[in-house]
Amino acid sequence: MFLRLVNRIAATVFVAIVSLASALTAAEPAPIAIALHGGAGTITRTAITSEQDAAYREILSSAIDYGHTRLLAGADGLDVVVEVIQIMERSPLFNAGIGAVMTWEGKHELDASIMTGANLDAGAVAGVTTIASPIAAARAVMEHSPHVMLSGAGAEVFARDQGLELVDNATFTTERRKNALEKYKSKVAARLTPDKDYKYGTVGVVVLDANGDLAAGTSTGGMTGKRWGRIGDAPIIGAGTYANNASCAVSATGHGEFFIRYHVAGDICSRMQYQGISLTQAADTVINGELARVGGEGGVVAVDVRGNVAMPFNSEGMYRASIDATGHKTVAIYGIDD
Amino acid sequence: MFLRLVNRIAATVFVAIVSLASALTAAEPAPIAIALHGGAGTITRTAITSEQDAAYREILSSAIDYGHTRLLAGADGLDVVVEVIQIMERSPLFNAGIGAVMTWEGKHELDASIMTGANLDAGAVAGVTTIASPIAAARAVMEHSPHVMLSGAGAEVFARDQGLELVDNATFTTERRKNALEKYKSKVAARLTPDKDYKYGTVGVVVLDANGDLAAGTSTGGMTGKRWGRIGDAPIIGAGTYANNASCAVSATGHGEFFIRYHVAGDICSRMQYQGISLTQAADTVINGELARVGGEGGVVAVDVRGNVAMPFNSEGMYRASIDATGHKTVAIYGIDD
Repeated sequence: MFLRLVNRIAATVFVAIVSLASALTAAEPAPIAIALHGGAGTITRTAITSEQDAAYREILSSAIDYGHTRLLAGADGLDVVVEVIQIMERSPLFNAGIGAVMTWEGKHELDASIMTGANLDAGAVAGVTTIASPIAAARAVMEHSPHVMLSGAGAEVFARDQGLELVDNATFTTERRKNALEKYKSKVAARLTPDKDYKYGTVGVVVLDANGDLAAGTSTGGMTGKRWGRIGDAPIIGAGTYANNASCAVSATGHGEFFIRYHVAGDICSRMQYQGISLTQAADTVINGELARVGGEGGVVAVDVRGNVAMPFNSEGMYRASIDATGHKTVAIYGIDD
Repeated sequence: MFLRLVNRIAATVFVAIVSLASALTAAEPAPIAIALHGGAGTITRTAITSEQDAAYREILSSAIDYGHTRLLAGADGLDVVVEVIQIMERSPLFNAGIGAVMTWEGKHELDASIMTGANLDAGAVAGVTTIASPIAAARAVMEHSPHVMLSGAGAEVFARDQGLELVDNATFTTERRKNALEKYKSKVAARLTPDKDYKYGTVGVVVLDANGDLAAGTSTGGMTGKRWGRIGDAPIIGAGTYANNASCAVSATGHGEFFIRYHVAGDICSRMQYQGISLTQAADTVINGELARVGGEGGVVAVDVRGNVAMPFNSEGMYRASIDATGHKTVAIYGIDD
């Protein structure tokens, strides 16, 4: 009688524990989140045709869905960052890979960087001209070299040794960017101020994966008409890209010189970590406070370890998309969620 | 009678105010301070001859005296940073300018950066081979280009256009660095771990000038045997160099890859500003806490707006010197003030 009672109680407790465990698992799957940008600038409804608007929204939407599906399946955050950035590097719509802007000499010099928040490993390439996927090269630097940042012809030797795909520099050229360079050079020749959009456009992705690890990556062709081996913020760890599981993952786009001087990506993470403020507060303070005050145009996408997403920008628009930990999806170009 | 009393009181008050004002001025001249490093690493009493020890101390002492005298005379902080770094760039004792380490190919690729805390203006050059003074080129980028960071051959075209002195790459070569490269390559060929000192050595200066402005600069030849256009922390604003009047000015030296990943210079300033801790606490936490924990060897020199100086390092030694706001002078190589 007593033993049966003990057995009954034990069985009940066992069932309760199993139910509780499965309830907990069902109620709180590991949060995942992803956000991406395709550049910030003077992007307004009047400057963009409805066809362009639709084309951008389609690729932003499909890229974010692809990344989210991969994260749901348990993919590593670094894999997702690289794969989603490669979707944009291959698209002529964005200033990265194919579709990159042109230098003063009519060439393409590409920059990229990547970082994992798990152990602060990072990699970057600057001023590369023949590497098909700069973000893949940045990851190879991180994983297969003792260095963080490689540049120019040397970085290409490294990429070749790593078996990465090399292409002719002209592979990245599009009519749109040729025209932009001509327009830029004629304005400079006439001593007129070029349209400020020559400075903008970069792609970037930040993720929280199912392991709870943050990662960030950025890839760009830089600034139309750039000279003298100019390096912007995109390949600078701490400026264009940063990730730390203790705070957040950030990828920036905008007028790179300001983003270097204000070490934007690192500063957003530092404010969150040291001031104990939210991701949204930290990102807003830097983008709409510090940078806006001095005319440093641009924006960031950022995610924290709870899967919160922030995508502030102080320019007219920023191509962007996100799916946060609650599953809420945003695809937008202009003002708030528009 | 009453008027005379009022006059007497007024005169007394006037004299008191004047005395007070002059007393305040005399008692508290604008604080100035300066600190410099000439590289960190496995620098021990047994590894250095007494002649080498004396030679390093002599140049560290004369360089810090020169800079302090200039600051006392009211010189601009940026001028002092450039001039004191140039003393070390011209000396074969340091890994910057003449005496720079050699790349895998037996060349010199030099990096430098500079920043002012007054308005966060900054400039940098990376991978330059023919510019006599990389720190002067970094300043020219800051003041005469729309960019923050220029690299490689492009940076040299810019420097030439700016009228900066260009020299043959071999100008920077010394027997000591030739031998170091040979030793490094033979160890690599034998699949042995090279002496870790191949990673270190850089020069840097931080100042608080009489206007109350902070400035920082760093110049280096990078890492012995470096390949693939490797860029270290020295030219990275936020990693090797940072200055912000709201917090501090920092110049770093050490295993550059760690200093990039931990955005060391920017992080020390952020901790001071956001956590409200002292310069010493912030610099110690990053160098002897964060970096030491992961094996990121090296150190920094740092100064704040009150003229406090911090020079923590987690390697065996760091060539360093400082004169703080109280006039206290330190010249040291090994452990505490030694």
